[in-house]
Amino acid sequence: MHAYRSHSCADLTADNVGENVRLSGWVHRVRDHGGVLFIDLRDHYGMTQLLCDPDSKVFADVEKVRAEWCIRIDGEVKARDAALVNPKIPTGAIEVFVRDIEVLGAAAELPLQVFGDQEYPEETRLRYRYLDLRREKMQANMALRSDVVASIRRRMWDGGFREYQTPIITASSPEGARDFLVPSRLHPGKFYALPQAPQQFKQLLMVSGFDKYFQIAPCFRDEDPRADRSPTDFYQLDMEMSFVEQQDVFDTIQPVLTGIFEEFGSDKTVDQDWPQISYKDAALWYGSDKPDLRNPLKMQVVSDHFAGSGFAIFAKLLEQDGTEIRAIPAPTGGSRKFCDRMNAFAQKEGLPGMGYIFWRDQGNGMEAAGPLAKNIGPERTEAIRQQLGLEVGDAAFFLGGKPKTFEAIAGKARNVIGAELGLTDENRFAFAWVVDFPIYEKDAETGKVDFEHNPFSMPQGGMAALDGDPLSVLGYQYDLACNGYELVSGAIRNHRPEIMFKAFEIAGYGEDEVRKRFGGMVNAFQYGAPPHGGCAAGIDRIVMLLAEESNIREVILFPMNQRAEDLMMAAPSDPTSDQLMELGLRVIPQE
Amino acid sequence: MHAYRSHSCADLTADNVGENVRLSGWVHRVRDHGGVLFIDLRDHYGMTQLLCDPDSKVFADVEKVRAEWCIRIDGEVKARDAALVNPKIPTGAIEVFVRDIEVLGAAAELPLQVFGDQEYPEETRLRYRYLDLRREKMQANMALRSDVVASIRRRMWDGGFREYQTPIITASSPEGARDFLVPSRLHPGKFYALPQAPQQFKQLLMVSGFDKYFQIAPCFRDEDPRADRSPTDFYQLDMEMSFVEQQDVFDTIQPVLTGIFEEFGSDKTVDQDWPQISYKDAALWYGSDKPDLRNPLKMQVVSDHFAGSGFAIFAKLLEQDGTEIRAIPAPTGGSRKFCDRMNAFAQKEGLPGMGYIFWRDQGNGMEAAGPLAKNIGPERTEAIRQQLGLEVGDAAFFLGGKPKTFEAIAGKARNVIGAELGLTDENRFAFAWVVDFPIYEKDAETGKVDFEHNPFSMPQGGMAALDGDPLSVLGYQYDLACNGYELVSGAIRNHRPEIMFKAFEIAGYGEDEVRKRFGGMVNAFQYGAPPHGGCAAGIDRIVMLLAEESNIREVILFPMNQRAEDLMMAAPSDPTSDQLMELGLRVIPQE
Repeated sequence: MHAYRSHSCADLTADNVGENVRLSGWVHRVRDHGGVLFIDLRDHYGMTQLLCDPDSKVFADVEKVRAEWCIRIDGEVKARDAALVNPKIPTGAIEVFVRDIEVLGAAAELPLQVFGDQEYPEETRLRYRYLDLRREKMQANMALRSDVVASIRRRMWDGGFREYQTPIITASSPEGARDFLVPSRLHPGKFYALPQAPQQFKQLLMVSGFDKYFQIAPCFRDEDPRADRSPTDFYQLDMEMSFVEQQDVFDTIQPVLTGIFEEFGSDKTVDQDWPQISYKDAALWYGSDKPDLRNPLKMQVVSDHFAGSGFAIFAKLLEQDGTEIRAIPAPTGGSRKFCDRMNAFAQKEGLPGMGYIFWRDQGNGMEAAGPLAKNIGPERTEAIRQQLGLEVGDAAFFLGGKPKTFEAIAGKARNVIGAELGLTDENRFAFAWVVDFPIYEKDAETGKVDFEHNPFSMPQGGMAALDGDPLSVLGYQYDLACNGYELVSGAIRNHRPEIMFKAFEIAGYGEDEVRKRFGGMVNAFQYGAPPHGGCAAGIDRIVMLLAEESNIREVILFPMNQRAEDLMMAAPSDPTSDQLMELGLRVIPQE
Repeated sequence: MHAYRSHSCADLTADNVGENVRLSGWVHRVRDHGGVLFIDLRDHYGMTQLLCDPDSKVFADVEKVRAEWCIRIDGEVKARDAALVNPKIPTGAIEVFVRDIEVLGAAAELPLQVFGDQEYPEETRLRYRYLDLRREKMQANMALRSDVVASIRRRMWDGGFREYQTPIITASSPEGARDFLVPSRLHPGKFYALPQAPQQFKQLLMVSGFDKYFQIAPCFRDEDPRADRSPTDFYQLDMEMSFVEQQDVFDTIQPVLTGIFEEFGSDKTVDQDWPQISYKDAALWYGSDKPDLRNPLKMQVVSDHFAGSGFAIFAKLLEQDGTEIRAIPAPTGGSRKFCDRMNAFAQKEGLPGMGYIFWRDQGNGMEAAGPLAKNIGPERTEAIRQQLGLEVGDAAFFLGGKPKTFEAIAGKARNVIGAELGLTDENRFAFAWVVDFPIYEKDAETGKVDFEHNPFSMPQGGMAALDGDPLSVLGYQYDLACNGYELVSGAIRNHRPEIMFKAFEIAGYGEDEVRKRFGGMVNAFQYGAPPHGGCAAGIDRIVMLLAEESNIREVILFPMNQRAEDLMMAAPSDPTSDQLMELGLRVIPQE
């Protein structure tokens, strides 16, 4: 017989009754029923009930085991009494009578229970991650992650892509965050950088003629931690294709992601229709460039109804350039109580409040209620109702000013309204491509024009477009939103050196600077670069959505804590003086 | 029609004759045949012949294109004249008459030709790697690498393994090489390390109950570069299993590797029988712990025949403790010329020479020739011949001393003899497990006992074995050799804290030191650790063998040069003073 097991803890059924078996695993729970010991023995695959009565030769040894001891047992499979059969687990029809036991690894007192649902502070969980990971939920999350990544790979292979590994210790490839640096021992004083993304390398692969590249790529950004972002390394499905336009990239990645969400998204429906929404429309309609389309609410501009109206705040506002009034329709939200709650929400967000109108049945017909309706009068109120398509029992909320100043809050309000009124379909994965991002943005403080995203996207209209107003230049650049999260980001790249230099010049970077920062890629483009484009999808975030978690650390095996520390492994730590010497570095004492 | 292509450059056959097609790719070669231009257009998939005659409206544009320009053409597929059909390529039956052309990316003068077999210095190739990678050989090598890794993953999944990603920015996990360090910005003066291997994490996964782990894992070692080793990052198939013994690991990994070598090893035969050879026997028989079993030669101890013999050098040597005389048999090597050449080899390796005997036909019977035979006389000579099983036409070479002093050279001599005599079967992948490695070794200079390999292996005999002579303790530790390369290394781990502390104590490390260096893992072992073991296989080396390359940089997309620099991307480079400030570091000026 094998030294440790003849079966896993999920294998034994009524068919095995009478067999002598060997199992290994962890003591999940021990119960003493009138002197008879029942042990739930757990391994990666499942759970088997062990039984040991005082007649057993090894009773004294079995009596000693405690939760989370790792043991090996030999025993005989017996059928459970019909009344005790547990149909919920595969091994629920049997139990194993222990004949022999070996302690493979005893356990000290546990800082964290594996059995049960007790909550622990994150610091405790991360410090004893190996115990935390034994819990059912974490086992399931990590298996899910592994299976999602495997399925992505299969789907990309099936699509004719090959996975290529790009360097990890390399040069800076700025993507808008800070680089992690790696000091060089062979070249003291010089540093490598860990890639924020394999952006330049995947573009170089296209110049090298590889046509279809993907990689489940580790990426490294020295960012301050937050719930949906890992503070150090994270993984992307990174892909790139040659000789393609934007729609080709969409047509390639959509079936991969649809497939993944269908395969792993439990019972939720997965949208097959992925609308393409311009960045501008997304801001107007949803107050976000990662709209949550499970929520059917769509904002509208209602400035006309307020211009010159009796609601002085909005009327005055509209006299300023670039201001607008926007409405968030709220079907079924037509009660004073709800409207007041939303008003309170707006105040909590730092606004003076949020105007509203709601329509109620007054016996002799519909009545528009709320102070706003009174101020602007029945005609304007009715025009608003008609524009928004609202009825009795519905409400509308209004925000005004320069869109940039309230768009984000409007978007949040839309989320809250959708959720509170039960309009948002929680049982669905809703996708939307956000397209036509502007290439440039103006810094509000300095007035300087800079790249809105990364500088590698092809401007729509090519070279000619760069001769006009930079702020009106759109790029072949796109994001994919899913349920309000940005899941994918990508672009058709600017593969023409002359257009690239011009694009950089507008953002204030001279040719020398560009050659210095992106020399590898820019030089390569001189030698017959193909048109190419692609995207990157956040693996951790996809798994987070599929696992229905809101904290990315729940889907990462050994994450850093919020201070970017690994307390279990004691990282970061002090270097030795030999190490510093070899690297030619000195640590500046901190005050 | 698609903006760039209706077909790839490998698609068109006689079936497409008459169709109007669109192709994109690189100009591989332009030929001018009496005013008619022939262009070989190349993409990732293949090559198509284009034709443009002076009647074409775009002749003037076509005339301008040069090698490695990236172009898009429209044209009509025509059948080639029967005499011009090229059966060697899929598109050899047709050519495309160019009707329209668009230059997608022009190319400056090429520092490196893609067409043809011209050799370039490695520095040129790496600096213009994107051009170098366009060459047929490199395209094939990288595709092979990608396909090998994909196949490994499929095979591991099929074996019930899941792939889990372990942290990259983490704590030091010493494996005998130097760590790459990563300074922390949030904790100035402290450093993360990049893992030399996911050793501790994979063991922690076993403690976490994951049972079967694998990962195509990036590993980082700050080592001085050499031909079969990358100076920065490289990839391993890393795997670990719980509740296993050594043979279980062998039984798991052998079919995976056999399958890979059969799938990708062109026509070579792949050994199905993988002998298990002890470290001690490997040293004796093959002079190496990574024996090349394609070579049938097996060395033997022949001390008895020389002890007290007339060959004073060996006879005297044998009077010292711990000395031996070993013979390398050389069937068919029985000529003075060959023996002299081997003697010269030994001298080149720094030995005074290598004694030999060879047997030739003297008309009236066999004669043993060479000075050695004379010195020891016919009886001893004949005894040697019989022990080695040699015949007329064969030879034997002899080395003596303390085995450690000559084993490596003996191993090399065995390789040379096998190769020169054509005994080594070049058309074969021959595998051998080398087992029973000693846990400890004694430093020749200091006399200090230290771990022979890594400190994580379980000693054979467990705790009891550690009470005796440390140098005689063997570990459940193993390597897999293939054709003279170490392909895999692994062990059954020491999962019992008390045995681990004892093992470290023997090597001079106190409990505090162990807790400091391997705290994450040692702490974890206190909470019910399962017996576990695994191995890691070098991906780069496997691909190198399959691609029949002898330099690892031929199977890596963007390798560093021999000085650990990436000249294409300019890495490593000077940090900015802001970066250093944020990290709390100062660079010590070098003299």
